[in-house]
Amino acid sequence: MQGNDHDFRFGRWPLCMQRGKKFHVSGYAEVSTRKKTFAEVQTERLDQAERTVLIKCPSKLNEKKLLQYLASHGNVKSHFFFENRGISALIEFSEKSSITSLQDAVGIPSASEHHVVPFKSRLFTFTLKNPVSQHVEETPLHLSPQSHIPVKDLIEKLCLADSISSQMYILLNEYQLTEENIRLRFLACSLVRDFARAYFPDSTVKPFGSSVNTFGKLGSDVDMFLDFRDTGRHATKMKKGPFEMEYQMKRLPSERLATQRILSVIGDCLDNFGPGCANVQKILNARCPLVKFSHQPTGFQCDLSVSNSIAIRSSELLYIYGCLDSRVRALVFTIRCWARVHGLTNSAPGTWITNFSLTMMVMFFLQRRSPPIIPTLDQLKELAGKHSCLCLLQLIFYCTFVLSKVINKPNLKERLYVLLGEFFEYFGNFDFRKNSINLRKGKEVNKPESSPLYIWNPFEQDLNISKNVNQPQLEKFIAMARESAWILQKEDKTQQMINKEPWGLAALLIPFGKNNSSKMKNRMKGIGSETIRSLLDSLKLNNASSQQKAVGK
Amino acid sequence: MQGNDHDFRFGRWPLCMQRGKKFHVSGYAEVSTRKKTFAEVQTERLDQAERTVLIKCPSKLNEKKLLQYLASHGNVKSHFFFENRGISALIEFSEKSSITSLQDAVGIPSASEHHVVPFKSRLFTFTLKNPVSQHVEETPLHLSPQSHIPVKDLIEKLCLADSISSQMYILLNEYQLTEENIRLRFLACSLVRDFARAYFPDSTVKPFGSSVNTFGKLGSDVDMFLDFRDTGRHATKMKKGPFEMEYQMKRLPSERLATQRILSVIGDCLDNFGPGCANVQKILNARCPLVKFSHQPTGFQCDLSVSNSIAIRSSELLYIYGCLDSRVRALVFTIRCWARVHGLTNSAPGTWITNFSLTMMVMFFLQRRSPPIIPTLDQLKELAGKHSCLCLLQLIFYCTFVLSKVINKPNLKERLYVLLGEFFEYFGNFDFRKNSINLRKGKEVNKPESSPLYIWNPFEQDLNISKNVNQPQLEKFIAMARESAWILQKEDKTQQMINKEPWGLAALLIPFGKNNSSKMKNRMKGIGSETIRSLLDSLKLNNASSQQKAVGK
Repeated sequence: MQGNDHDFRFGRWPLCMQRGKKFHVSGYAEVSTRKKTFAEVQTERLDQAERTVLIKCPSKLNEKKLLQYLASHGNVKSHFFFENRGISALIEFSEKSSITSLQDAVGIPSASEHHVVPFKSRLFTFTLKNPVSQHVEETPLHLSPQSHIPVKDLIEKLCLADSISSQMYILLNEYQLTEENIRLRFLACSLVRDFARAYFPDSTVKPFGSSVNTFGKLGSDVDMFLDFRDTGRHATKMKKGPFEMEYQMKRLPSERLATQRILSVIGDCLDNFGPGCANVQKILNARCPLVKFSHQPTGFQCDLSVSNSIAIRSSELLYIYGCLDSRVRALVFTIRCWARVHGLTNSAPGTWITNFSLTMMVMFFLQRRSPPIIPTLDQLKELAGKHSCLCLLQLIFYCTFVLSKVINKPNLKERLYVLLGEFFEYFGNFDFRKNSINLRKGKEVNKPESSPLYIWNPFEQDLNISKNVNQPQLEKFIAMARESAWILQKEDKTQQMINKEPWGLAALLIPFGKNNSSKMKNRMKGIGSETIRSLLDSLKLNNASSQQKAVGK
Repeated sequence: MQGNDHDFRFGRWPLCMQRGKKFHVSGYAEVSTRKKTFAEVQTERLDQAERTVLIKCPSKLNEKKLLQYLASHGNVKSHFFFENRGISALIEFSEKSSITSLQDAVGIPSASEHHVVPFKSRLFTFTLKNPVSQHVEETPLHLSPQSHIPVKDLIEKLCLADSISSQMYILLNEYQLTEENIRLRFLACSLVRDFARAYFPDSTVKPFGSSVNTFGKLGSDVDMFLDFRDTGRHATKMKKGPFEMEYQMKRLPSERLATQRILSVIGDCLDNFGPGCANVQKILNARCPLVKFSHQPTGFQCDLSVSNSIAIRSSELLYIYGCLDSRVRALVFTIRCWARVHGLTNSAPGTWITNFSLTMMVMFFLQRRSPPIIPTLDQLKELAGKHSCLCLLQLIFYCTFVLSKVINKPNLKERLYVLLGEFFEYFGNFDFRKNSINLRKGKEVNKPESSPLYIWNPFEQDLNISKNVNQPQLEKFIAMARESAWILQKEDKTQQMINKEPWGLAALLIPFGKNNSSKMKNRMKGIGSETIRSLLDSLKLNNASSQQKAVGK
């Protein structure tokens, strides 16, 4: 593991937290040696996104000249290039005013002047007037990857590691969101906000879920919500004097109707005015009305809904758990990848266990360790006393040592590979028939009803977040967990490495097939490096883009 | 007439031009002793509208206190009150920044905080916290009328005049747009522009047609268009250097499609976000796509389309003709009111003569006087030499004496009542079977095709603007014109006044009935003042609001 430390400890950790003793009891994310709360990170990212533009570039680009040109409008604070239907550059200016300066200088597409919708966004196209003459001094651009490597390549990489724990961190490092990808996500939100702000100047569009909870995987959708929270800011002013002045506003019989109308119009605006906004679908009659669209300039599939406190609290809770201890994220990423490979999860809706349920199962498992690795929700709540749960979550970040009070003897020692094996064993033997999973109490609790898998919604009591899972799916999960626990126990790393067989986590990420486990095991024993390759090829998991969808969010 | 001079010469003339020798050869409108072009007036009005807000007031209002409150946000340059679903106040600030200051202090409706669409416009509601205590010192508000008087009342007023010419000016004065009504119209455009500007910051929404051509009648619809003309302003910049930067924009296969999409979304925004925007109808497949809606805060029925150069040129041409000589507008208003009373025009589409066609017939008649009262379009064009017609129209306003060159011996002497009688005689005897009306040449020209009434479109040659008129409608027009000419010839004012009979123009504004003219004439002879009242009542024209629609645009 030592050899890879530099790679995954600092290089690509988005809301960088460091493993080990130093930060394990702190709810803070450490970025540039300053501790930041979830809200602070969000605010900083949103501000950064507002100072950012996206430029489509020619394939033959002189980076220096682009930057020289941009410098005439202001200081470029950071930038990177990426591939998405050609080369694009994300440019962060130091000042917002630089964007205005740039926008004033930029032209409307002239070839078909009258057939464009003249909506001026922060999306530009940079072209060379005389491409031939500029080829000469070119240096190849560094392109930041925006998708993770195929499972096939991952498995090969894992085989080279020195321990199962290292393998898990390598997987985390390959799959988690990069700094660049997070910037792109916030930019997508910021560009949508430009649409909302046109009519609701105090509104913001914020990402939630995988983009911000530290459990996001490269390629996952961007969930964003429109927040009107600031709109009522001035409502209390002007109470003095014998009169009141109010805005005339459209009144609607319900908040839901207002939400639907606003989302509908913003959806139409995106569809008709938004450059690169395609496949806009309004799903307004859902419990949580939303607009789905693909945002081609950033390459994301986006879901826009309206401010939803549970979604935000859930993101913040996961953020806290993700920041508490680096083993948390490594274990979650590992379990999710494992579940996807074995068909236990699926990006399509159905009877599969969702990634959210799976993550909650990991959290529950970590609460159940002795001593526990993360606190229960009730423990967190207790801390906040009479405060609401949301206040509590904020509170955590203002009290560095708060968690050390919750967990008297923090569990710092259990190795990651141990946790992986124990996870499989724990759920391989869990009495799903009788018990439910309760993260508030951190206890197995009698099931209140007969759903095969019952996981209490942490924020809305008496709701089962895994109601969709049926008995066969649950049984498949149990069987796979047992099989995996058995494989890990039988591990003989040295022998496997000599035989050039997939070992450790790599062995767990190869489908076990329809044969029973012992036969499979025997088959695995005899194969050499050539056969590994053909086995891997047969997985048909070698297409990165299909992988992106396949391994779920 | 002398007694009424003050009233209608200055008081309510919107783009004040003065009758008589002083300005007859000038294309300028005189407002506050400065001469202004059509474009200058438009710009000034639009700017004024941007500094304007609309406030819904309680019925018991202390005007002083409202103004005192508003003064804390900036200097109120002008204001007036009017009735429209309660009392409203239009407030013009000296500075635009005062509106921002006001907006910052104004609250969101609090009673149903979550069920409003939080779009912040320039429409406010002013309420007294303790209405009872403030009744005391109240002085009644002056309310500016926003609709014209019913025909019944008009006829009574006309009977008191001292000449037919005076009657025509009284009619003009009662029906034409007031200064206040024009401000409200520009405000309606400016409020719609706030919607368009949200996405297209360089766009403007401008009124055209009756609101600006000096021929608008109180109660007429507000025609407005969305103008993107300024959007391409910066397109030519940034041509230096070896590269080009362009906006990424939605591209559409046709300009028409772009227009339809933009109007559709703005229609939805008005419908869903716009306070008091009701009955929004999208008519996107029309030759000129438009969105119809009623704007309740100002009380207008609005038609929003996209920039249409012919509509603008047509407005400007009428503006010039209207400013040339005050007899022009008085005659047009008289003929239109007469035509409406006799069922020759109708606000609904059909085979009726349109107000625009009727106006063109009056203009043609005035071109045909000897010497002419207004120049032909070709004469105007000749002046501009190689310039386009649009350039010419602008040119006129930059050359004070230009029209005196066109009309060598201007016709200054013909009295208005003479023109009225001559109009009826001219079209009562016009050879519609053979001839068409050509305003470019100012000549009767052989009809190019067999439509009963053929009036050449002044801006698009080979188009007949009165193609919709059928033979029976035309014959009715001819019959009414002849009947009216005959009535005017037989006028015996003194005798009629003694008998308290409607006389002069008043007699022309009473339907002639289905009896033939001589019988009708005899009937009219014998009736006294009592019978006049019951006759007037029978007209059922005493409802101002139905009148508003009925007498056309």
